[in-house]
Amino acid sequence: MSSAAVPVRRLCVIGVGLIGGSLARALRLAGQAEEVVGCGRGLANLERARELGVIDRFETDPGRAVVGADMVLLAVPLSAMDPVMTAIAPTLEPDCVVTDGGSAKASVVEAARATLGPALPRFVPGHPIAGTENSGVEASFPELYRGRKVILTPLEETAVEAVATVKNMWEACGARVSCMSVAHHDEVLAATSHMPHVLAFALVDALSRWGDRDEIFAYAAGGFRDFTRIASSDPLMWRDICLANHEAVVAALERYTGDLTRMTEAVRRQDGEALERAFRNARDARERFLAMLES
Amino acid sequence: MSSAAVPVRRLCVIGVGLIGGSLARALRLAGQAEEVVGCGRGLANLERARELGVIDRFETDPGRAVVGADMVLLAVPLSAMDPVMTAIAPTLEPDCVVTDGGSAKASVVEAARATLGPALPRFVPGHPIAGTENSGVEASFPELYRGRKVILTPLEETAVEAVATVKNMWEACGARVSCMSVAHHDEVLAATSHMPHVLAFALVDALSRWGDRDEIFAYAAGGFRDFTRIASSDPLMWRDICLANHEAVVAALERYTGDLTRMTEAVRRQDGEALERAFRNARDARERFLAMLES
Repeated sequence: MSSAAVPVRRLCVIGVGLIGGSLARALRLAGQAEEVVGCGRGLANLERARELGVIDRFETDPGRAVVGADMVLLAVPLSAMDPVMTAIAPTLEPDCVVTDGGSAKASVVEAARATLGPALPRFVPGHPIAGTENSGVEASFPELYRGRKVILTPLEETAVEAVATVKNMWEACGARVSCMSVAHHDEVLAATSHMPHVLAFALVDALSRWGDRDEIFAYAAGGFRDFTRIASSDPLMWRDICLANHEAVVAALERYTGDLTRMTEAVRRQDGEALERAFRNARDARERFLAMLES
Repeated sequence: MSSAAVPVRRLCVIGVGLIGGSLARALRLAGQAEEVVGCGRGLANLERARELGVIDRFETDPGRAVVGADMVLLAVPLSAMDPVMTAIAPTLEPDCVVTDGGSAKASVVEAARATLGPALPRFVPGHPIAGTENSGVEASFPELYRGRKVILTPLEETAVEAVATVKNMWEACGARVSCMSVAHHDEVLAATSHMPHVLAFALVDALSRWGDRDEIFAYAAGGFRDFTRIASSDPLMWRDICLANHEAVVAALERYTGDLTRMTEAVRRQDGEALERAFRNARDARERFLAMLES
């Protein structure tokens, strides 16, 4: 953590689920947040978050929740970013830094430009590359971000100090922070995360409608469980991500479908050489990827 | 295990890798195999198998290896089934039961009909639905088949007693055995195993050729590791499976590509309802599948 770090005095987490709850837990564990205010629509979840000690208190109105906060994390579905920003803009403190955890950035930035007004330079768009297929505050844990990447996509207008403050906050949770452009983020994540989720959802959805469904699943092997784990992710969250990043997701899906069609043709003409070459390249690439992750 | 079970006196495992080695280990552990003879092409692997106690001795010539055996497991790549059957047919004992572990059955049955002659009624085509992405005798372990399914696809000519003997053998390893037709097996496995492997290989292969490869993989999240685990499987084995079961694999891939194209169109026209319906159906289907696995 940089020496410029100023611990958060009052963190306001809007959306106390896996992402927001885990940030609150991690900052508390690191002694980096004096007070945490939660905000959300589900009273039961907020009460559970308070019971668990993830938050100190809560508000259900975002405009009230951010009063007095010096750091706000928006950890709500992408479709809720615009209304939440609209609600908090009038009551944000003048020195408050705002960041978010949205999995696609262009739509969040569009909402920020439309709603935040004078607070825009203190908004740092962000995306922690972490998660599990579970959701809700019960699923949150303080180690979620340890060793994981967080991407920030600051705008031309974004204040350098605001970026440093958000970077320090994530580093205090054990994350490694890097910056890139909004468009580049959305293309890379479409390829490595958004498209693979669509592929897995499409596979399980398709199989569930093929012939004798129970039999199909009964003979699925262990690999199938791993391969389809991401198809257990939150349907609403992934619907929102596909809608928010639709251009890059469609481009990635079209490119993949083209590659898959070529591979299907190789199976059809029984072209063992082409299949072996592609399969070997895939295995080698994945091994390099795992080695890179470990280094 | 049925009371009709007769322990194996001499098991001959041709191909002492994950599948063959694990059967030998499991039968030994259950006290169901008096002697195990290994056979394969790699001397180092056979010597390692003997060191590990997986086999008692080995031969490199399949025709010699089966002499005196009352049970033979063919655990070789699909492309080697025909030559190995050709090699063992003349020296099989008159009462010897032969089975295999091939992941696609039509091509194995075709080879058996072409090569085994009078031994055909004692050949029981089989497929243990178990495995990991690792291979070789070092990867084998006696619990591999515990609680897993083994599918047998007996032919019209197959002797009922031979089926019972093979069923008992797999049950002694903790597996649950069921029977179905060759064609039905190949269709179901194309959908649940062969096609998903092609999808995963195609995804990693495609990403490895997109723009800045290292960056693409650097921002891949945890889900990506699970989703692509099966792309670390043996390229030659999966090439063989795709070639052997090409008709059913192509049919499954075409059907999936059609479903994926429809989902891509839903993303393009930003049809949130269609996406949510498909994603929700997929998640629900997977949860039913996991519940079924546990019950």
